[in-house]
Amino acid sequence: MNFQPLGDRIILKPLEADSKSKGGIVLPDTVKEKPQEGKVVAVGKGKVLDNGTVQKPEVKEGDVVLYAKYSGTEVTTKDGEEYLIVREEDILAIVKK
Amino acid sequence: MNFQPLGDRIILKPLEADSKSKGGIVLPDTVKEKPQEGKVVAVGKGKVLDNGTVQKPEVKEGDVVLYAKYSGTEVTTKDGEEYLIVREEDILAIVKK
Amino acid sequence: MNFQPLGDRIILKPLEADSKSKGGIVLPDTVKEKPQEGKVVAVGKGKVLDNGTVQKPEVKEGDVVLYAKYSGTEVTTKDGEEYLIVREEDILAIVKK
Amino acid sequence: MNFQPLGDRIILKPLEADSKSKGGIVLPDTVKEKPQEGKVVAVGKGKVLDNGTVQKPEVKEGDVVLYAKYSGTEVTTKDGEEYLIVREEDILAIVKK
Amino acid sequence: MNFQPLGDRIILKPLEADSKSKGGIVLPDTVKEKPQEGKVVAVGKGKVLDNGTVQKPEVKEGDVVLYAKYSGTEVTTKDGEEYLIVREEDILAIVKK
Amino acid sequence: MNFQPLGDRIILKPLEADSKSKGGIVLPDTVKEKPQEGKVVAVGKGKVLDNGTVQKPEVKEGDVVLYAKYSGTEVTTKDGEEYLIVREEDILAIVKK
Amino acid sequence: MNFQPLGDRIILKPLEADSKSKGGIVLPDTVKEKPQEGKVVAVGKGKVLDNGTVQKPEVKEGDVVLYAKYSGTEVTTKDGEEYLIVREEDILAIVKK
Repeated sequence: MNFQPLGDRIILKPLEADSKSKGGIVLPDTVKEKPQEGKVVAVGKGKVLDNGTVQKPEVKEGDVVLYAKYSGTEVTTKDGEEYLIVREEDILAIVKK
Repeated sequence: MNFQPLGDRIILKPLEADSKSKGGIVLPDTVKEKPQEGKVVAVGKGKVLDNGTVQKPEVKEGDVVLYAKYSGTEVTTKDGEEYLIVREEDILAIVKK
Repeated sequence: MNFQPLGDRIILKPLEADSKSKGGIVLPDTVKEKPQEGKVVAVGKGKVLDNGTVQKPEVKEGDVVLYAKYSGTEVTTKDGEEYLIVREEDILAIVKK
Repeated sequence: MNFQPLGDRIILKPLEADSKSKGGIVLPDTVKEKPQEGKVVAVGKGKVLDNGTVQKPEVKEGDVVLYAKYSGTEVTTKDGEEYLIVREEDILAIVKK
Repeated sequence: MNFQPLGDRIILKPLEADSKSKGGIVLPDTVKEKPQEGKVVAVGKGKVLDNGTVQKPEVKEGDVVLYAKYSGTEVTTKDGEEYLIVREEDILAIVKK
Repeated sequence: MNFQPLGDRIILKPLEADSKSKGGIVLPDTVKEKPQEGKVVAVGKGKVLDNGTVQKPEVKEGDVVLYAKYSGTEVTTKDGEEYLIVREEDILAIVKK
Repeated sequence: MNFQPLGDRIILKPLEADSKSKGGIVLPDTVKEKPQEGKVVAVGKGKVLDNGTVQKPEVKEGDVVLYAKYSGTEVTTKDGEEYLIVREEDILAIVKK
């Protein structure tokens, strides 16, 4: 995966819904608004605030996170890999190891 | 529960509606917009303000709080435990012990 | 009443509409948008502004105030007491003693 | 009139539409959006800005002002006196003596 | 005309549509959204910015200006004079003498 | 053309759609949302930012620019000349000579 | 291509959907909301923040980027070349070489 996300964007590898989720959360395909689980594969530099300071991302590569369903933009690479480009705002929590 | 909420998010364990509520408030399942009661199980670092300073959360783990109905995102863990990920803005008050 | 409101929230005890209102204002149940009267029973720390400073509340416990109808969230305690959790923004004026 | 308005609120005594208006403006009951005239009877401390400084009100007690029709909240006291609680933003101009 | 506008408000004397417009612009009553011409008769202190500084108005009494049609609030004085209270934001340009 | 635009406003002389456009762009009357070309004939002092500093305009008199279709306000002078008063935000790019 | 974009705008040369995309992403014409790939041909000075500081663009000429479909404004030059003027906010990621 050779993308460098911009600003406050984060690239996730969505976890397959039926696989045993790292966070131990139920990942029902159907249930509306239930958060999804994914692995962080790339992080941007962070959000530029009104006064120019940069808000470093709280998440880092390798973290497994919960994110709001329907957020972000899907990207499918030629080898069929699906990624999701979200804003850090869309990430709800980090799944502690 | 092994989630670390991000930013100004707080993870609550909603109190069952019929149990005797800690705050002594009536928790009618039905009544529209009546606030709900829940226990704080994890807090984020806090909200990053426009100038980069972080607004520490007022609530802490273990607090019982009133929160606006219909706010936040539900998460159900594999062992059937239900949690709610809200923003601190959605929490109305702390129930004093 | 054992709730500590968060941030810029204020807890009021709404004055019964027919009782003689402290501020001497007419409290018609019916009239649309007419302000209501209530007594302040608890105040939050105040609103956190963009630069992190806290805007101390202008009202204090014991004040009788006028507030915009339909604002805030109702809370009913087990002993049937009704309170209203509003934001200070919803309070129009203090009734001078 | 024993109310102390909060923040950037101002309490006005609306001028009766048919009386000779101080500012010499026509106060037609009917005409849509035409501004109204009223007398300032109480002023708040002023609007708290994003950085915590307080923007002192430009109007003071006794000023006669023009204000946007339909703004503010009406309050009727027991002795039948009608007042209007507006935000200073709703006041268009001061009528010079 | 004895009104002192508040904040960033400006009082204009709209130019009659058919009179030869100072700026030499066509003032068709009908044409939608075409700007109007008027003379500045009073200016407020200026807009208070987020940090409390006041943005002095660019226009001054006597200037002839172009302003966006349908902006502002009309005021008619007893002697039938029509004025318009606009915000400086609604003024597009000054007609150079 | 004797108008001095206010604040962040810019006055443009729209290029006739069929004339050979300076920037060599196709100026089809019909095509939806395609940008238009025009010449800068007057610039305002610039946009006043939240803290009072003024953001100098990037464009200057004589520049040929691309601007978003349907933006701004048309002004027709008595001698039939058509101008457009836009905000600098509506200008997409400068056509390099 | 002789345009200099203003502020936080970036000019892209969209990659043809069927060509082998640099980032190796699938560029299906049809799929809704799938991001598009393009090459940066010109960058603006950057976004002016509330306090006047300029947020330098993260992308530079020559970068291949992923951008949100349907964003920006199309420009077609006389020689039939199609460009897209977007805001840096619309760019999701840079395709690493």
